[in-house]
Amino acid sequence: MNDRRVDRVLARLQEQGVSQMILTDPSSIFYLTGKMITPGSRLLALYISGEGKHRLFVNRLFPMDEDLGVEVCWFSDTDDICRMMADCTDHGLALGVDRKMTAEHLLALQGLGAGSSYVNGSGCVNQVRGQKDEEEQRKMIEVSAINDRAMEQFKNLVKAGVTEEALARQVELIYKSLGADGNSFQPHIAFGANAADPHHRPDGTVLKEGDCVLFDVGCRKDYYCADMTRTFFYKYADDEARKVYDTVLRANLAGEAAIHPGARFCDIDRAARGLIEQAGYGPYFIHRLGHSIGIDVHEPGDANTANTDPVLPGNVFSCEPGVYLAGRVGVRIEDLCMVTEDGVQILNHYPKELQVID
Amino acid sequence: MNDRRVDRVLARLQEQGVSQMILTDPSSIFYLTGKMITPGSRLLALYISGEGKHRLFVNRLFPMDEDLGVEVCWFSDTDDICRMMADCTDHGLALGVDRKMTAEHLLALQGLGAGSSYVNGSGCVNQVRGQKDEEEQRKMIEVSAINDRAMEQFKNLVKAGVTEEALARQVELIYKSLGADGNSFQPHIAFGANAADPHHRPDGTVLKEGDCVLFDVGCRKDYYCADMTRTFFYKYADDEARKVYDTVLRANLAGEAAIHPGARFCDIDRAARGLIEQAGYGPYFIHRLGHSIGIDVHEPGDANTANTDPVLPGNVFSCEPGVYLAGRVGVRIEDLCMVTEDGVQILNHYPKELQVID
Repeated sequence: MNDRRVDRVLARLQEQGVSQMILTDPSSIFYLTGKMITPGSRLLALYISGEGKHRLFVNRLFPMDEDLGVEVCWFSDTDDICRMMADCTDHGLALGVDRKMTAEHLLALQGLGAGSSYVNGSGCVNQVRGQKDEEEQRKMIEVSAINDRAMEQFKNLVKAGVTEEALARQVELIYKSLGADGNSFQPHIAFGANAADPHHRPDGTVLKEGDCVLFDVGCRKDYYCADMTRTFFYKYADDEARKVYDTVLRANLAGEAAIHPGARFCDIDRAARGLIEQAGYGPYFIHRLGHSIGIDVHEPGDANTANTDPVLPGNVFSCEPGVYLAGRVGVRIEDLCMVTEDGVQILNHYPKELQVID
Repeated sequence: MNDRRVDRVLARLQEQGVSQMILTDPSSIFYLTGKMITPGSRLLALYISGEGKHRLFVNRLFPMDEDLGVEVCWFSDTDDICRMMADCTDHGLALGVDRKMTAEHLLALQGLGAGSSYVNGSGCVNQVRGQKDEEEQRKMIEVSAINDRAMEQFKNLVKAGVTEEALARQVELIYKSLGADGNSFQPHIAFGANAADPHHRPDGTVLKEGDCVLFDVGCRKDYYCADMTRTFFYKYADDEARKVYDTVLRANLAGEAAIHPGARFCDIDRAARGLIEQAGYGPYFIHRLGHSIGIDVHEPGDANTANTDPVLPGNVFSCEPGVYLAGRVGVRIEDLCMVTEDGVQILNHYPKELQVID
């Protein structure tokens, strides 16, 4: 157990009058225990309490030898795991629960009267997780540096006859050759009009002259995630594509320039979005500016128009404006940004000026 | 909307005094609407009610053109989606919720008083989904037939110098070449002692003479999943490995022979488990005999020691006994089994006798 992190979470919970919580998110449990257990469809749960009666509930299918500094309660598929958890909680006190706990378990805990009331405690966990400590910052810098190096290799694969799918298959191999543990998410690679659909999956589409080539890719190393997008052009970029690219690049830079401790997420979003609107592409930037990232590739804490929270030192999030013209072209440029004590450190250094691949 | 399926779910709910439900599982929503939407970390929700006021809540990031025969309520990341849902529900009646709904949404709905009480309604949905109709049965047969054909190709890749990882990379390509849409899960491929760890992931382990070679693999086609395990040996199988194999094969056959409408899941598990216990390997068969399968590779309805539910015509589940001797060998043999009106149809036909690859 990382006592410092557990104490910080409990202190946040205490501010809301909550002194016990059941976490079920494997990433949060890794954050607090140092042990990544990926239980698939099975439950994994960590009970923490102000009295220090922490318990880790693990299915016997995931045996482990090491002493994590927390009492482990083993269970089988046929055990009544909610009753086991309710036997640990203080029924007279409010019980924090993980926002990702399933209704199946929450309704059962409520039926057993495990707490006097039930509170989504994830905000407290996420505030603490959101402010990466020194060790985590080092890992975020390292994994993003690998992503930078990989991007040059991805670009070099872009040539006549290649398909999105064929490129996508190379991504993980390249990451591993550079020392990463694997992909942090399935690579989004899209040519031409496909890039205008933010949820397009790489398929057999063959590269054509004049296509944009969008790579939204990330690796992970030591359980921390990278995420970066670059958009290239093949053979040429027409005037409209260049205008779109220029707009998105200026928005990316404006967003990043607006980041400093205390700035609000919504104002950072606005700084980027405003430039896209001024260029007349407002309706074609259809998503948030960015998302927080760390152990998970998407962590709570969006840079969007509604999030009035201030950014804090140690926060790491993406700045990824995009413009998508259906049937024609899509451009997105994304870096990870780490808030420092007095400004921001951009974690990606791969060039952003328009590149035409010949 | 598939009105016949919706009506069957509502009839089951009504038996429990529930006349409205919010589903959030994309597979269940596909089952009822015919449209697969994979919303990633975003919410997707289907409200169904006995009064026919069905609503589908979809994030604007997932646009679609077709008319699904249900009113679609579009929302953005910044909308208060729980309030939108609570505006549709009848606050004076019990509200069924999906077992996979997250605590974040359930607590918000409870805070808004969306129902007079909250009930895990997934049992009703799953009973209906569990009994595959004719169209679904055809798809399950078809996708398992592809898995049978693929297994022969996987076996042919087993030769000197190969690694688990290299085999794993071929799996999806072979599936697609045979007409499948892709993997239904990440292939589990393990050599020798690795096969004794049911959660081993394919890595750089190189094949050795005398190794068992375990393939637990599945493809999907038209949104339905296959899942099969075969265990081969490379060059030779020692006496202990042969005894383990023989035991597991007899358990697999005994489990399958015990399947007929009305048989209890626990008795099917027992039929297989008993043979393994008699052979002295009881402590080394550490998991359930099987799991239900269909649109999801793991669906509710386990064949385990505790599930006293009877199997019903149209149920499809795996029969996958295994014996795992740590540090030495692991053997698992798995078929999908479909309950018929008067017995069982085994969906996998790839041979099960011990094969030594030379």
